[in-house]
Amino acid sequence: MLKRVIAVICDGLGDRPIPEFDNKTPLEAASTPNLDKFAAEGECGMMHTLGRGKVPGSDTAHLEIFGYDIATCYSGRGPIEVAGLGMELREGDVALRGNMGTVEDGMIKDRRAGRIRIVTPLCEAVDGMEIDGCTFIVKPGTAHRAGVIIRGEGLSDAIIDADPHVPDVPIRTVTPTDDTPEAKRTADVLNKFLVQAHEVMKDHPFNKERIAAGKLPGNYLLVRGAGQYKVVDSFKERYDLTSCCIAGGGLYKGIGAFLGMDILDVPGATALPDTDIEAKFKLAIQKINDYEFVFVHVKAADSLAEDGNFQGKKEFIDRIDKAVPILFDKPDDCLLVWTADHSTACEMKAHSADPVPIMFHGGSVRADNVTAFNERACAQGGYGFIVGLDLMPQVQNLLGKLHLVGA
Amino acid sequence: MLKRVIAVICDGLGDRPIPEFDNKTPLEAASTPNLDKFAAEGECGMMHTLGRGKVPGSDTAHLEIFGYDIATCYSGRGPIEVAGLGMELREGDVALRGNMGTVEDGMIKDRRAGRIRIVTPLCEAVDGMEIDGCTFIVKPGTAHRAGVIIRGEGLSDAIIDADPHVPDVPIRTVTPTDDTPEAKRTADVLNKFLVQAHEVMKDHPFNKERIAAGKLPGNYLLVRGAGQYKVVDSFKERYDLTSCCIAGGGLYKGIGAFLGMDILDVPGATALPDTDIEAKFKLAIQKINDYEFVFVHVKAADSLAEDGNFQGKKEFIDRIDKAVPILFDKPDDCLLVWTADHSTACEMKAHSADPVPIMFHGGSVRADNVTAFNERACAQGGYGFIVGLDLMPQVQNLLGKLHLVGA
Repeated sequence: MLKRVIAVICDGLGDRPIPEFDNKTPLEAASTPNLDKFAAEGECGMMHTLGRGKVPGSDTAHLEIFGYDIATCYSGRGPIEVAGLGMELREGDVALRGNMGTVEDGMIKDRRAGRIRIVTPLCEAVDGMEIDGCTFIVKPGTAHRAGVIIRGEGLSDAIIDADPHVPDVPIRTVTPTDDTPEAKRTADVLNKFLVQAHEVMKDHPFNKERIAAGKLPGNYLLVRGAGQYKVVDSFKERYDLTSCCIAGGGLYKGIGAFLGMDILDVPGATALPDTDIEAKFKLAIQKINDYEFVFVHVKAADSLAEDGNFQGKKEFIDRIDKAVPILFDKPDDCLLVWTADHSTACEMKAHSADPVPIMFHGGSVRADNVTAFNERACAQGGYGFIVGLDLMPQVQNLLGKLHLVGA
Repeated sequence: MLKRVIAVICDGLGDRPIPEFDNKTPLEAASTPNLDKFAAEGECGMMHTLGRGKVPGSDTAHLEIFGYDIATCYSGRGPIEVAGLGMELREGDVALRGNMGTVEDGMIKDRRAGRIRIVTPLCEAVDGMEIDGCTFIVKPGTAHRAGVIIRGEGLSDAIIDADPHVPDVPIRTVTPTDDTPEAKRTADVLNKFLVQAHEVMKDHPFNKERIAAGKLPGNYLLVRGAGQYKVVDSFKERYDLTSCCIAGGGLYKGIGAFLGMDILDVPGATALPDTDIEAKFKLAIQKINDYEFVFVHVKAADSLAEDGNFQGKKEFIDRIDKAVPILFDKPDDCLLVWTADHSTACEMKAHSADPVPIMFHGGSVRADNVTAFNERACAQGGYGFIVGLDLMPQVQNLLGKLHLVGA
């Protein structure tokens, strides 16, 4: 009987036929004998994560894969990102993620302040600022990134991004996107904060040192992705499973933190093509003794496809597969779930609505006739076509944790 | 990257096993090497157009295939048929289609006025009639057919057909099917119109000539299929695709017109078994340079099955396949979608709820292992089981026209 789970989510793993690969997808073209071994022993299917004809974002896809309906749990990327920075959210908070940028004479000179590597002193200088009854909580992220929480009464996430996403334009005044007084108030206090924070940061000693050293100062918070936090029940509350998150990318740590998973530190996990995949899988095998659900995220297939780099995507998948034998040592009572959050089509350099392969491996799984792990093979799989919200109920089912409907 | 679409819809193509065909369906029994070639190169699946266990009408099936939810867009066949006659609809109009029949002493003598071939002078004689604040707009269709729009305040489509669908019975007084004042008013004004129009037409010189020539006069409008028009966004507005319709049958031209497609004239397209299939496909190949979405409708498989003529259906499918190589010349960036609106079961001589095969062919499509285009083969297809409303989102997906949900 299965008792615990390793769930590996390979970002953007699915793709479309690549003419240079004789119309195979990168996953089909890659050498995946180890994934294929799992597939041959397991049960496969296809997943339209958010449903057919929907192009999933990475945030929304992961939420639904973990069983959290985005219709009620998701209102923007901000709350997930700030959770990933270890910031505590309260019901009604509006959370944003952002860059520390350089503004001169009201113009955005650089969106990342010359790729500033640390913004901690600047964030500390503006953290806790009070404006019109709202508190602004500001914490540093990796490199130029930061998280901002607006805490107060009567707020809304119906506001545009302060970040115009391009440099060499004037700073953008935040405006509401609906007619509610809450949206207007939120835009107003955020605009005041951005100006006052700029005043505080532009003359900060940390920036004076940077300027003296010929570097761009980090003096303006380019925030985006506003979302209003609604309390969600944690993964433990929902599934009665202890869980941890093994990821390099901030968003994925954020997903884990948002759901109350323990976020494990993995030296060498960079979320880039050079990431240490073996370190992640080794940690998963080690931690499956401590947690009932280990979420492992592997990022780079997505980023490579967003660059249109099908060869790089194929080679990264080759590398993933080489690390897969580490997972052969999972305990007999451990279910392996292997899937992707969405397809990223090299030809579009963007996420697509094409379904992704999914595989279940472990003792209680009904093995099917699929002998390879890829889009074409898994479309013939015994588990058929599912959506993201179908996944956790199947995990619960295999673990004997579902309740009877009726008698 | 795919940029344009030819969508071929073969009416009533699906069927059930035929004992005389060694329990093959007409599609399986037919010789379809060219469709099979497309299937081998493309991705296949099955479609329950309106959902499992629903028997689609041709009108409702086409609407959902084109992404228009019949729950909000459809209230009867009238608006679609009158759109196909080029009649302009306004929000709130009640539209009906009908036959010009022969009534004598209050009895329906013939439902098609002796298969009258032109009803234009008769329609013109009653077009624009005003009754109780309503205007009746009447336009001729092909042969004995006509379209009627009732325009005015406070109307409803909750009325029975005036056409009893059989001859040699008394003319039928239209009654409301619900208790609303709108339905009562609509039935009342329509009954007045039918009587007054009869008075005008029965003594019309055109009919006097017919009677003198020993022909039946067209003197009564046997109307049916009342529907109240609701404004729908056009195909162009919804999908940002220019589109045209290549069809012989009035209903299918009506579907195209209803959605704002350009209706192309195809000499030889009769909607009958003798229709010039090659002319349709040649026009599609020609027009795919001018339109991003070319809808081609082929009718007769449905009509033959409704006669129980499985041999004729098989032979018609043979003929379709012989014309398919014309489509081999579609541009590389052209997606071909090939499907049916519904199954028509020869054994029932009626539409059935059995799913229909569907095929996608073109560069970005994930080819699967299916090598024949028929019900049994496509049930193994890589695209799985879809409903009609899933089709256009997949077209948008393959054309890179969907928006991200999340970030």
